[in-house]
Amino acid sequence: MATGSRVYVEGEVGLVFSGLSAFPLTPVSEDGVDEVAFGGLVGRLAAARVDSITALGSTGSYPYLERAERARVARLAVEHAGDVPVLVGIGALRTREVRALAEDAQRAGAAGVLLAPVSYQALTADEVFGLYEDVTGELSVPLVVYDNPGTTHFTFTDELHARIAALPNVASIKIPGVPPAPAEAESRVSRLRSLLPESVTIGVSGDPLAATGLNAGCEAWYSVVAGTLPEPALAITRAALAGDAATANAESERLRPLWELFTRHGSFRVVSAIAEQLGLVSHPNLPRPVRALPEADRADVTRVLHDLDLHR
Amino acid sequence: MATGSRVYVEGEVGLVFSGLSAFPLTPVSEDGVDEVAFGGLVGRLAAARVDSITALGSTGSYPYLERAERARVARLAVEHAGDVPVLVGIGALRTREVRALAEDAQRAGAAGVLLAPVSYQALTADEVFGLYEDVTGELSVPLVVYDNPGTTHFTFTDELHARIAALPNVASIKIPGVPPAPAEAESRVSRLRSLLPESVTIGVSGDPLAATGLNAGCEAWYSVVAGTLPEPALAITRAALAGDAATANAESERLRPLWELFTRHGSFRVVSAIAEQLGLVSHPNLPRPVRALPEADRADVTRVLHDLDLHR
Repeated sequence: MATGSRVYVEGEVGLVFSGLSAFPLTPVSEDGVDEVAFGGLVGRLAAARVDSITALGSTGSYPYLERAERARVARLAVEHAGDVPVLVGIGALRTREVRALAEDAQRAGAAGVLLAPVSYQALTADEVFGLYEDVTGELSVPLVVYDNPGTTHFTFTDELHARIAALPNVASIKIPGVPPAPAEAESRVSRLRSLLPESVTIGVSGDPLAATGLNAGCEAWYSVVAGTLPEPALAITRAALAGDAATANAESERLRPLWELFTRHGSFRVVSAIAEQLGLVSHPNLPRPVRALPEADRADVTRVLHDLDLHR
Repeated sequence: MATGSRVYVEGEVGLVFSGLSAFPLTPVSEDGVDEVAFGGLVGRLAAARVDSITALGSTGSYPYLERAERARVARLAVEHAGDVPVLVGIGALRTREVRALAEDAQRAGAAGVLLAPVSYQALTADEVFGLYEDVTGELSVPLVVYDNPGTTHFTFTDELHARIAALPNVASIKIPGVPPAPAEAESRVSRLRSLLPESVTIGVSGDPLAATGLNAGCEAWYSVVAGTLPEPALAITRAALAGDAATANAESERLRPLWELFTRHGSFRVVSAIAEQLGLVSHPNLPRPVRALPEADRADVTRVLHDLDLHR
């Protein structure tokens, strides 16, 4: 359940950093972005009434695209999102590039930006703080701190989160998950919460534990699955944020076969296969060297979609 | 000592993938590459008679630079290297970009290219093989496989090395290090060697164990320290490849305080501080968000340079 004064009201204006944020794929070929398919994915999310759409998250292949492609994808997302706010990922290896991408995102009409400390040479805590300091000082929209050690190979401490959250324009923290036991999840979220300004929301990611995270006090779910299958993710979010933990857990439990595929193959390749199966994108749609799941694994995905009645 | 028919002869033409390959920094500011300083670094290595110069390795900040900057750095390296062969790093997150960078490197006059499987989404072995397959098929110069799990977060098996080494144009493998015990180092190198075509050399990296690696049968040292301090690295290489393991070990042992700094702070930031201390580059020279070492650590670097008589 949401804590403090940040009570969630469905559709309320201004609560951009609460509720369900859906992360669509950016379907690509070696020639470029499939703009028609991308526009379709975004329009579908807007029609489902997700609370926000995050274009160019990890699921949206942001680090694989060139600056001009990213600017174009940001514009397309805003164009197809209607009145649903759009957040745009601006992560890049170099501060210089992040600054340029922030400008492009703002020009495209983003309601906020999402920034992960992407690394090649391992970064120190002071270097990561410096990155957020350099970038937030120039922003005219709010920023989500994107804590994703699986891809950035940087691990935040709660203390570093607190230092960064005190910078101007920081609106939310996307945490990589919560412990599976509800009591531990609650104390993990409370500890982080106690270090943050009141205005900064905490959003859970790692879809298999999203219900646990929302039930433990996260105000938002930054969701991979919602970018392709918004309805079941909305059901979990609406129940959890209305205080109905049991319904949220039951719906998440029902989706367990899907979470098992995510755990086995990574959510990125699995949602790509789902989007293909639903006819939303063509094959292949991931940026090489990343490849689609092998045929046998794709058959598993198809079977799970049918079993869960998510194939239409 | 070099094994099989690949006996090392100092200065012998054609042995591009044997001996000492020096990796210079690419000094940068937020405005771009310091071309004058970079040309100076390369010229210094050529004058020291290293066996090859690898521009745009990890030490050369390749993933932080734009395509045009990388093309320019490759051209400058060839221009300032005289008759010393130049290898050029072509790693990037996306196959499309790697192909373009390979073209640029070849056009600049590179004698070979160096390719690491840079990742954001974790890559499978088949995806990494696919990357090398896509790229080597189009090359007109030899390729070094760059195995650097510390920065790419991909771990090669020897079996994958063998599959890749059988592709056309693969000339060498840059392994990330060897076990510290000489007997274990030898069996590690022999095992890999037994899986590779005769023409493919093995080069050690991880400077603190380079003498051990060369003594264990590696034909090359892909060296961070040699990019800034070529002489002591040449002393180790010449001794080891002439079969004088004791002299190689003694020289490496003498440099232990330097290796300790590498281990503590990472070789990237330490060689940057050394190059500054020697007046070869200005301050700062690393790509943000990466920062120079803090003042106290820089004082340690200065002290070690003086103690080892490497400060001139």
